[in-house]
Amino acid sequence: MNNFIVDKRLQADSIFLGAFPLSQVRLMNNTLFPWFILVPCVAHNEIHQLERQQQIQLLDEITTISHFIECRFNTDKINIGAIGNIVRQLHVHVVGRMENDHCWPNVVWGVKEKNNYTHQQTAVIADDLTNYFSQQAKLVYISKFN
Amino acid sequence: MNNFIVDKRLQADSIFLGAFPLSQVRLMNNTLFPWFILVPCVAHNEIHQLERQQQIQLLDEITTISHFIECRFNTDKINIGAIGNIVRQLHVHVVGRMENDHCWPNVVWGVKEKNNYTHQQTAVIADDLTNYFSQQAKLVYISKFN
Repeated sequence: MNNFIVDKRLQADSIFLGAFPLSQVRLMNNTLFPWFILVPCVAHNEIHQLERQQQIQLLDEITTISHFIECRFNTDKINIGAIGNIVRQLHVHVVGRMENDHCWPNVVWGVKEKNNYTHQQTAVIADDLTNYFSQQAKLVYISKFN
Repeated sequence: MNNFIVDKRLQADSIFLGAFPLSQVRLMNNTLFPWFILVPCVAHNEIHQLERQQQIQLLDEITTISHFIECRFNTDKINIGAIGNIVRQLHVHVVGRMENDHCWPNVVWGVKEKNNYTHQQTAVIADDLTNYFSQQAKLVYISKFN
């Protein structure tokens, strides 16, 4: 999609790591959780409005990032949410949860506490993501983090 | 899957309306939101652990119920969540949201207030669901509500 711009609130809250064929991969800037956001490059705001091939691509990207989170952060549970009540632009939260994390067993949405990543911490996660996908080769992934 | 049993907490909180090929369709027993739950008949607890064909089937069922909710309840937004921190059995929340509903723009998960449906109210929704799918014929749906 030409002229695709990520909503300013998503830009402010999260860090652009790279891109799958359909979606930007962003890291919520909060060390309390391994919290990733996929932002599909589409005009629709709802998953059910997408063309079926786009839906399947998004599903594959959610699956892939879920495997990465589980593997990299040794999480107990993956939480997936497509909400968009505040930021309407379609985005999917994929969050690794630990049974002793900040707000377990409640959901992360609405949690006010946050702790920003350092640039170095983000760079390590970005590198791990790139290495993971280069090994898995399940899905094209291009790192955009510098 | 043989011997598939829905978790007792899901049984207590929601009403069995019918079944898609993969998932039970249940209505959260709370009139505050048009809140549906799909419970896939699978052993895994995470979407990324399912076989790809099961994932795509679940996606189609989420899409279909989303269209129904939007059409039937004239909602402003669909919220989709696969959480499972408390009830680990895989289940997907598909919730119709209105900009003036009980907890807008916050998420419904964690809301304590509830108001049970009468049997008659549930029967009407179950009928509407059956009629909708018989007209759409997008996906096999069998009503189990009586």
